[in-house]
Amino acid sequence: MDKIPYKIYLTEKELPDTWFNVRAAMKELPESFINPKTLKPCMADDLRPVFCEELIAQELNVTDRHITIPGEIMDFYKMYRPSPLVRAYNLEKELDTPAKIYYKFEGNNTSGSHKLNSAAAQVYYAKKQGLTHLTTETGAGQWGTALAMASAFFGLDLTVFMVKVSAQQKPHRKALIQTYGGKVIASPSDTTEVGRKILAENPHTGGSLGCAISEAVEVALKNDKCRYVLGSVLNHVVLHQSIIGMETKTALEKYDIKPDIIIGCAGGGSNLGGLISPFIADKIEGKNNIEFIAVEPASCPSLTRGKYAYDFGDTGKMTPLMKMYTLGSGFMPSPNHSGGLRYHGMSPVVSKLYHDGYMTARSVEQTKVFEAAKIFARTEGTLPAPESSHAIRAAIDEAIKCRETGESKNIVFGCTGTGYFDMTAYTAYNEGTMADYIPTDEDLQKGFASLPNVN
Amino acid sequence: MDKIPYKIYLTEKELPDTWFNVRAAMKELPESFINPKTLKPCMADDLRPVFCEELIAQELNVTDRHITIPGEIMDFYKMYRPSPLVRAYNLEKELDTPAKIYYKFEGNNTSGSHKLNSAAAQVYYAKKQGLTHLTTETGAGQWGTALAMASAFFGLDLTVFMVKVSAQQKPHRKALIQTYGGKVIASPSDTTEVGRKILAENPHTGGSLGCAISEAVEVALKNDKCRYVLGSVLNHVVLHQSIIGMETKTALEKYDIKPDIIIGCAGGGSNLGGLISPFIADKIEGKNNIEFIAVEPASCPSLTRGKYAYDFGDTGKMTPLMKMYTLGSGFMPSPNHSGGLRYHGMSPVVSKLYHDGYMTARSVEQTKVFEAAKIFARTEGTLPAPESSHAIRAAIDEAIKCRETGESKNIVFGCTGTGYFDMTAYTAYNEGTMADYIPTDEDLQKGFASLPNVN
Repeated sequence: MDKIPYKIYLTEKELPDTWFNVRAAMKELPESFINPKTLKPCMADDLRPVFCEELIAQELNVTDRHITIPGEIMDFYKMYRPSPLVRAYNLEKELDTPAKIYYKFEGNNTSGSHKLNSAAAQVYYAKKQGLTHLTTETGAGQWGTALAMASAFFGLDLTVFMVKVSAQQKPHRKALIQTYGGKVIASPSDTTEVGRKILAENPHTGGSLGCAISEAVEVALKNDKCRYVLGSVLNHVVLHQSIIGMETKTALEKYDIKPDIIIGCAGGGSNLGGLISPFIADKIEGKNNIEFIAVEPASCPSLTRGKYAYDFGDTGKMTPLMKMYTLGSGFMPSPNHSGGLRYHGMSPVVSKLYHDGYMTARSVEQTKVFEAAKIFARTEGTLPAPESSHAIRAAIDEAIKCRETGESKNIVFGCTGTGYFDMTAYTAYNEGTMADYIPTDEDLQKGFASLPNVN
Repeated sequence: MDKIPYKIYLTEKELPDTWFNVRAAMKELPESFINPKTLKPCMADDLRPVFCEELIAQELNVTDRHITIPGEIMDFYKMYRPSPLVRAYNLEKELDTPAKIYYKFEGNNTSGSHKLNSAAAQVYYAKKQGLTHLTTETGAGQWGTALAMASAFFGLDLTVFMVKVSAQQKPHRKALIQTYGGKVIASPSDTTEVGRKILAENPHTGGSLGCAISEAVEVALKNDKCRYVLGSVLNHVVLHQSIIGMETKTALEKYDIKPDIIIGCAGGGSNLGGLISPFIADKIEGKNNIEFIAVEPASCPSLTRGKYAYDFGDTGKMTPLMKMYTLGSGFMPSPNHSGGLRYHGMSPVVSKLYHDGYMTARSVEQTKVFEAAKIFARTEGTLPAPESSHAIRAAIDEAIKCRETGESKNIVFGCTGTGYFDMTAYTAYNEGTMADYIPTDEDLQKGFASLPNVN
């Protein structure tokens, strides 16, 4: 066997041409979505006013294990995929560990993260359906950028409601979306009814994701050629992100590497779900015994301290009810939390797999996360996003355990993106002004109080 | 022959393990450097107080065509190299051209540009010599970041004198350098004699590259374990950047692609020189008839409107005199010019090749550059640096010519980096507030007046 290279790139011919639908491999399916008005299971008709046809079909598909990626999407993927599977030789050396560490790096595209994998698919299907316009919300801005790139490529108009405080604090993110032709509206705005109502009540608010979602959905509902798109949590987003897992599996098999541990950071769960999908299907069938680890921020611990319950997907309570691990849609993470991963809930698929014992979860504090990020940046040469650095923290901790036990485990983790637009957080860490925050039980009770009565 | 993939990646085994020293292939060598005090040719002894031994040897080496890349540098390169050679299928489609367009993309590393290729080498040789500390200057910040990354990896201390106005306008660049452990000092500073002198005369100055260089050199001269390093212009920097050309040549030959045109942006000339080195050596020997095009900003047109004369490399007039195309070290480009490429001179190697007729040059205005950048960003999915976009502009113009003539030329260009840290300039372009600037003949005369009397 040749030495494993620093970076394993698949050739264009080796690229997977299907997404992996993990639900088709699960022994028990996640619970159905519920329409909050009728309290009956959600069907395609309930979703149609807001979402595209093909995405609804994917959302509800629990039977097809492999779903073919259309050629037009493959052509888009080929601009920035395959992403490299990197052997972290330098990090291993730094940690003096017998473990072998690999990471799948999704940051080598202009949006800076894995979000582009689903943006490309969602925009393509919207165009195919004859739509001309999409709306979405964005907080940190990775999703808004990804969607702007895909919309520019396929020729659709895009309106991004950007949380006002983010639009002010991250003018460069806003400029990037605009450079790709996206229209950015600071939310709350006077362009929607819900926005005007919020502004009348609280003229100086900095906005929130919940409010931005409400504005984006309102615009979509009023225009027959327009739909709303979402960058995480939902089944079809996890499906699109399975391209990460499919490529990772192909690359590992190419060099006959059998992973012992697979680690992903978890916010809404789409990156983690996509990374583990094909591997966990094998585990369900007894073909491997990989340890899957979800890593979440201690400040927003939905898996490790949340309830498995029906909840709204958004703070505005406009979505169907989903059975998932949640802190309650009214839970507010600390404002000093850096980066993403501040979602109150967790993908229903990931939640179910966790609930059924196929994976474990842990939470980490942000100063420990940035400590890991800086070790990684120095030794591996890539500045990671704060989100991705949660996975790095756990990978380093596992590698140190191996040093102590002498085990040479194969550790694989997902490195979802770059930290170029997170320098404010790095500066806070460099200057020692970054604080940790762990919600008290009382804080959590306040969030749980917002759970709907259906549970 | 298989269809050429979107991205050609070399395997680790295919990676070139030598730099290409184009001077060893030139029929006439560039003129020697001159010591401005003695007016005699510069020898190693003249350079020793400021530069590392091995870099001086490379600087003066005109005989060895191939120089082996040490294993430790190869290990560093493998973290982020090979860079992809991309077939710009989507750009070709957008332009409806029969031309085939390829670009070598150097932006997939955290420093965001090709600068890392020389930073890695310079820091390695400094460490090998037993030095503990390096100093440099940075303007836009790409070089400072690259050097911080390499210094963190090899374990050397680094002090970066950052032009004060840049440090203020680009706090995120500063934070990135600091994240990699680099000490950033806004220049002029009170930490050096020259800095204190300038501040005494002009307490509110925003600084300049010339001043930052002077401070960095002063620190290096006062510490026996410290040297000054430079990111462009010099022969050894062009040598290190030849890794770009070596990989490009290997990738093209792998698919039997014969380039008709090779285009690079030109500031100090190291990227362009490195990209074309192995190809122009073949041209000198009559083995190809490739058209090489240097593209420079109309606001700082050293090749197209400068003089071929001996000049200082810096505004502080501390360097040896170099024979090069120059606008005079006193030439000040317009403050509304965006991005890099604002150097008054041009690499002596590139200058000589141009002077002897092996390549052509053209200048482009910045609004035309950003127009090209946005077409590229939308169709190819990568946000290019303003510097790189000069080459994109010329590549698009050549591809449009092919559409008109029906020729299917192979056009190759260097895409040196990403534009993540240039969103202020993109915003100006998006909002229509970006202006063009072409120096008048009178402006140029002022610059030429600063040329030394030796010419």
